[in-house]
Amino acid sequence: MPSNRGVVYTGPGKVSVESIDYPELVLRPGPGVPPINENRPCPHGVILKVVASNICGSDQHMVRGRTTAPPGLVLGHEITGEVVETGRDVEYREVGDLVSVPFNVACGRCRNCMERRTDVCLNVNDHPGGAYGYVDMGGWRGGQAEFVMVPYADWNTLKYTDKDQALAKMLDLTMITDILPTGFHGCVEAKVGAGSTVYIGGGGPVGLAAATSAQFLGASVVVVGDPNEQRRKHAREVGFEVVDPLAGDLPDQIEQLLGVPEVDAAVDCVGFEAKGHRDGTEQNAAVLNQAMEVTRAAGAIGIPGLYVTEDPGAADQAARHGTVALGLGIGWAKSLSFATGQTPTMQYNRALREAILHDRVPIARNVNATVIPLDDAPEGYQEFDAGAPKKFVLDPHGMLGR
Amino acid sequence: MPSNRGVVYTGPGKVSVESIDYPELVLRPGPGVPPINENRPCPHGVILKVVASNICGSDQHMVRGRTTAPPGLVLGHEITGEVVETGRDVEYREVGDLVSVPFNVACGRCRNCMERRTDVCLNVNDHPGGAYGYVDMGGWRGGQAEFVMVPYADWNTLKYTDKDQALAKMLDLTMITDILPTGFHGCVEAKVGAGSTVYIGGGGPVGLAAATSAQFLGASVVVVGDPNEQRRKHAREVGFEVVDPLAGDLPDQIEQLLGVPEVDAAVDCVGFEAKGHRDGTEQNAAVLNQAMEVTRAAGAIGIPGLYVTEDPGAADQAARHGTVALGLGIGWAKSLSFATGQTPTMQYNRALREAILHDRVPIARNVNATVIPLDDAPEGYQEFDAGAPKKFVLDPHGMLGR
Amino acid sequence: MPSNRGVVYTGPGKVSVESIDYPELVLRPGPGVPPINENRPCPHGVILKVVASNICGSDQHMVRGRTTAPPGLVLGHEITGEVVETGRDVEYREVGDLVSVPFNVACGRCRNCMERRTDVCLNVNDHPGGAYGYVDMGGWRGGQAEFVMVPYADWNTLKYTDKDQALAKMLDLTMITDILPTGFHGCVEAKVGAGSTVYIGGGGPVGLAAATSAQFLGASVVVVGDPNEQRRKHAREVGFEVVDPLAGDLPDQIEQLLGVPEVDAAVDCVGFEAKGHRDGTEQNAAVLNQAMEVTRAAGAIGIPGLYVTEDPGAADQAARHGTVALGLGIGWAKSLSFATGQTPTMQYNRALREAILHDRVPIARNVNATVIPLDDAPEGYQEFDAGAPKKFVLDPHGMLGR
Amino acid sequence: MPSNRGVVYTGPGKVSVESIDYPELVLRPGPGVPPINENRPCPHGVILKVVASNICGSDQHMVRGRTTAPPGLVLGHEITGEVVETGRDVEYREVGDLVSVPFNVACGRCRNCMERRTDVCLNVNDHPGGAYGYVDMGGWRGGQAEFVMVPYADWNTLKYTDKDQALAKMLDLTMITDILPTGFHGCVEAKVGAGSTVYIGGGGPVGLAAATSAQFLGASVVVVGDPNEQRRKHAREVGFEVVDPLAGDLPDQIEQLLGVPEVDAAVDCVGFEAKGHRDGTEQNAAVLNQAMEVTRAAGAIGIPGLYVTEDPGAADQAARHGTVALGLGIGWAKSLSFATGQTPTMQYNRALREAILHDRVPIARNVNATVIPLDDAPEGYQEFDAGAPKKFVLDPHGMLGR
Repeated sequence: MPSNRGVVYTGPGKVSVESIDYPELVLRPGPGVPPINENRPCPHGVILKVVASNICGSDQHMVRGRTTAPPGLVLGHEITGEVVETGRDVEYREVGDLVSVPFNVACGRCRNCMERRTDVCLNVNDHPGGAYGYVDMGGWRGGQAEFVMVPYADWNTLKYTDKDQALAKMLDLTMITDILPTGFHGCVEAKVGAGSTVYIGGGGPVGLAAATSAQFLGASVVVVGDPNEQRRKHAREVGFEVVDPLAGDLPDQIEQLLGVPEVDAAVDCVGFEAKGHRDGTEQNAAVLNQAMEVTRAAGAIGIPGLYVTEDPGAADQAARHGTVALGLGIGWAKSLSFATGQTPTMQYNRALREAILHDRVPIARNVNATVIPLDDAPEGYQEFDAGAPKKFVLDPHGMLGR
Repeated sequence: MPSNRGVVYTGPGKVSVESIDYPELVLRPGPGVPPINENRPCPHGVILKVVASNICGSDQHMVRGRTTAPPGLVLGHEITGEVVETGRDVEYREVGDLVSVPFNVACGRCRNCMERRTDVCLNVNDHPGGAYGYVDMGGWRGGQAEFVMVPYADWNTLKYTDKDQALAKMLDLTMITDILPTGFHGCVEAKVGAGSTVYIGGGGPVGLAAATSAQFLGASVVVVGDPNEQRRKHAREVGFEVVDPLAGDLPDQIEQLLGVPEVDAAVDCVGFEAKGHRDGTEQNAAVLNQAMEVTRAAGAIGIPGLYVTEDPGAADQAARHGTVALGLGIGWAKSLSFATGQTPTMQYNRALREAILHDRVPIARNVNATVIPLDDAPEGYQEFDAGAPKKFVLDPHGMLGR
Repeated sequence: MPSNRGVVYTGPGKVSVESIDYPELVLRPGPGVPPINENRPCPHGVILKVVASNICGSDQHMVRGRTTAPPGLVLGHEITGEVVETGRDVEYREVGDLVSVPFNVACGRCRNCMERRTDVCLNVNDHPGGAYGYVDMGGWRGGQAEFVMVPYADWNTLKYTDKDQALAKMLDLTMITDILPTGFHGCVEAKVGAGSTVYIGGGGPVGLAAATSAQFLGASVVVVGDPNEQRRKHAREVGFEVVDPLAGDLPDQIEQLLGVPEVDAAVDCVGFEAKGHRDGTEQNAAVLNQAMEVTRAAGAIGIPGLYVTEDPGAADQAARHGTVALGLGIGWAKSLSFATGQTPTMQYNRALREAILHDRVPIARNVNATVIPLDDAPEGYQEFDAGAPKKFVLDPHGMLGR
Repeated sequence: MPSNRGVVYTGPGKVSVESIDYPELVLRPGPGVPPINENRPCPHGVILKVVASNICGSDQHMVRGRTTAPPGLVLGHEITGEVVETGRDVEYREVGDLVSVPFNVACGRCRNCMERRTDVCLNVNDHPGGAYGYVDMGGWRGGQAEFVMVPYADWNTLKYTDKDQALAKMLDLTMITDILPTGFHGCVEAKVGAGSTVYIGGGGPVGLAAATSAQFLGASVVVVGDPNEQRRKHAREVGFEVVDPLAGDLPDQIEQLLGVPEVDAAVDCVGFEAKGHRDGTEQNAAVLNQAMEVTRAAGAIGIPGLYVTEDPGAADQAARHGTVALGLGIGWAKSLSFATGQTPTMQYNRALREAILHDRVPIARNVNATVIPLDDAPEGYQEFDAGAPKKFVLDPHGMLGR
């Protein structure tokens, strides 16, 4: 059996690249695997040689120690790979196929999957929703590794027919595993369309993916808000308007840009670790309250940014139990609507693949995709955590031109 | 000029029936009229002889002194009436027409009206949204009166072609001015459809209108939650399942009824004056948090219940400024969506009129419509406030058979 | 291996009940099986003991000899059954489960299935779309039999949790395999909703299922048009308005019923064998042209009635090649929209199951469901073809109380 | 009273620029004005000094003598202008405003307008739907003139806040009066979205507007089909793929471009004057049948191309009465849907204005907008009819830089 190496969370603030088990077509017990999934057979799965796997902002919640992620967890839920083994029940994938993997694990056989809500699949975890390499998401091994197993492969993988063409555009295509559909979904839920003006809360990779999606969806102006100067600089360079939401009244800043103090739509790409003050103090509803403040009456807000049920690392008591102090009256008076949760990646990845293959969505440029070897993952995590305007793409087998 | 009488808010806890000005086709200055609307000409308006005007739960927020409503405000936003005068710009209504009036005042000429969002019309107030006889809603005189002026009448009124037929069903039809479209919208936003299981938070008239709407939309089971025993009794009698959300674990109670501890959809018909404890103490997010708790992953929550920006009468400091303590993490993990605000009545009233005229929606029975003379309005307010399971319909001209 | 018997098409005008092969978890070559499906392994399938299987109007196109259906074809695509064997890849169904089977065979693994368009699955036939026991639909053996194999069972079957409850309502529930979702889809595509007035072209079982669906969707008035007097009589008895579209000007007849000569929505439940004249002469676009004539501007038309590409039995040359003479100008001037094709049953069957289990949809009564033994199938076909207002439900194992 | 000049249809094949009445705020009797509209007062209207008015392909149906348009009809339904007079009931437009006028005349007061279906307004004609300067569309005077009256101006006009900015982009903005929303609607109805492949039948201005819209909506590949070589050349130059649908098997040609013989969506931008053969012979369903042939199963077809109820100039008898010979069986087998009719311009023009003002939609370049003086209109009609790949913009007051 071949060897395998992967990025392992070893405790608050620490990841390391270690030898890990080579994947089998069964989910073995291990860190984060709930009892219901221990030794779960996966004859419907495939084993992938990982071609690209990105570091995600949501990984940082874990690595910062803001979650209950157990040490030993193999990280990585943004996976593109080549099939090296297929389970006996796989019909439409074969060895050699290059495939993109939605970060949400889904069975293709439950009510929610049948209704395209693969973000909350009912069969892959002990509660709705699953993901690779993520706390509380079913214990599916992460893909920041040389090899990874993907269950229900006929359902969970999207094939690239032309491998060479796909490899050539892999820095863009790797983003359809998570952040591009995540940002796109945020915009769709915020009802972004032709001519919309859009406020994106947060200028990290998901924020930039949402901004890119907004443009692709026809927005006339996209404003990215982030207190991080580096990120604003990058966002401006790739074509977005920018503001620092902590630097003054946000509606005023919007008015300077748009002539009116409001936008048609807003997307919260930050979530519960929102900074509420210039000194960096958190205020978990800060971005959401800003979004409500600047969204016009009859507008909508997409919320891909994560909100948690328990946040032991929070500063105040209420926040520790996941309570956010929301100025809901403002939203109600404007008849706003809100949509939360993971993106159902499979609703979007096929369309986004086609768009990228035909050069419609410059996502790699916009998020500043940066390839690094698997072994450099720890440095990548560190640099990303420090706010670098980069999206790190791990290249475990040296298949991405650097 | 003929005389006029109407229900006037005279201070916390008090309403009285008084002589008021006969309406003109101009909005004269007065209590609650913003400067922008003072002496606004309404050649597009009609004057109605009020046939029916209902007391609404939302009126009670004002009468209880929980808002900034100014004394002197003429109440009443649920209006059906007969045209007695038409402005020169009115083309498609004439004297003698019997019409239903959406409670939201709208111009039919702004972006939001053009997009069917008459709940947040941009031209009838100094901020989005207008209504008759309501605090902060533009100062349009209320219709709990003998006569009332309705602006933009070609847009704002829905005509009954057959007056006799309509008068015979008026106890049902009067509900399309507000509570039925309000409940219906809550259900639509909660994605209630064929076969849905639905939780309705609140068993007052709006709750019962939402429950009725859920059934009409095809729900398989509708559960109404209310701590008020009288209301639960009535709700049960008209065909709904009931629970007391403060009497024990809500998911457990739901499971007893449905076999599973969750529903497909929930509608919050209570809003900020929610009771959080058996002793009647308020907890403004109580109903909303319960709704999140019982709604299944991928579900949605409609929020017709009012949330305010300022609530000086609230018990705690945060609530006083309209902040609600929301357990958003629970909702996020389940990918829930939320929709707030007034219903855009005009999206629904025509359809509901047809449905009622063909005996599809027993709303009068379900909300226990109870006709009283205009002069009895103060008693009606009092009885309603005490929790009586009744919907009071004022009959200023004795046109409704009692 | 147990024996099996089924209804076999033996040539124009003839069906007989014969011994047939007991199903295997593989699709063996046989009448109507395309090369691509010969000996196709189905480890994802189950074998069902058929509890109910209905005769469908679409079967009659074949039995009348109006299609290229090969003699030897085992008929039946409306199947409810009990699992007696499961393939190794089946995870969520087990022996003893009672399940409902959508008439469209679908893989759950192709783009169209992922997009909920199981009506045009890309993997179960040599062109989009599959069905059981139907010409040109992939050669899947029909279920008017004692036993039948259902592939991709985790995807293709809908389970009844409470078997006794389901058996007690089986005459209603058996209709969610085809005609109820077919009629429902026709109405959904025709945008039937609260308060709609609806014209249903055709008073056979699909027409009545569409009429029933229209009511369930909130229609205020449903008008069923059929030249067959028996069918009109039955439709009237179960609560619909009726007209004979060949007995006079259709808009005039509609006006007599509704006060206006048009409806909001129309559903064509007849298709290409439409009668255009009192003498019974066919005119393939007759029902569709009538639908356009009576649908109001901005309305929509659902077309569940089948239109074919080749119709060798047609009277005129153009019709023989599937050409219909459509008065499209009338539709264009009214901005009508049209939707054709099989219903994607899986979009509706779960919801309709819940609705039936809670007594919201009296479909068995409305279509006059009539149980007969498997052996009486030939008589059932004959009686149905003669226009009897009945929906025949075959009961191969005597499990349905008669 | 000032003078006025306009483009008048004087008989088959002929237009001339003539003195015409200066507009009043009343619709006077005249060619094409139905009795119901004679002397209709329009206190809700404005008089515009026309800044731009385009020649439309749909005008050509009239000018070629293929309709019942009466001689004396003033042409022109694509109008942008400056308000020079306002009716007494106009509230939100004033003298000096620069406004864009949707080609469909609509009242803003009927059921269809309230439901955003201004394409079939019920109050501006003797049957649903109205337009300026068009046969059978209510007799509203056309805008290929120096001055024109626009009724219901608060509803029917879209204002440009910054006149200078708008004038600078007028060659693009003038297209939101008709062809851009027309093409956009065709794409929306065909469900064009991110990543779609799209076939556009027809390479005239509407075809190019649809192609441009498809790209703006996120299409990955747009293929324009036209037998006219000049038009194909132009379409290729502005970035679309092209085919000649009469030059060979269309699916084959599509396969050459896309690798598969089908597209996700198709838009018929030709209508009833479709050419079916290389010799130029018409076959009214040719483009629609091609669209069905190349659209994938589960796809949709938008039909902005006009189909008429009576076509006295048609070659064959059936076509003379508006009957098209449709191969509907092909569409049914693929579960296609179809949408016909005028675009409801007001659903799109605001969004498209914003998009153009922010340089998102190069429509002027794509349709080859070409400014000519009003007096050159006859030459413009002639050149356009000869198939020139140009969109002529009339400039009655010399306000457009040439």
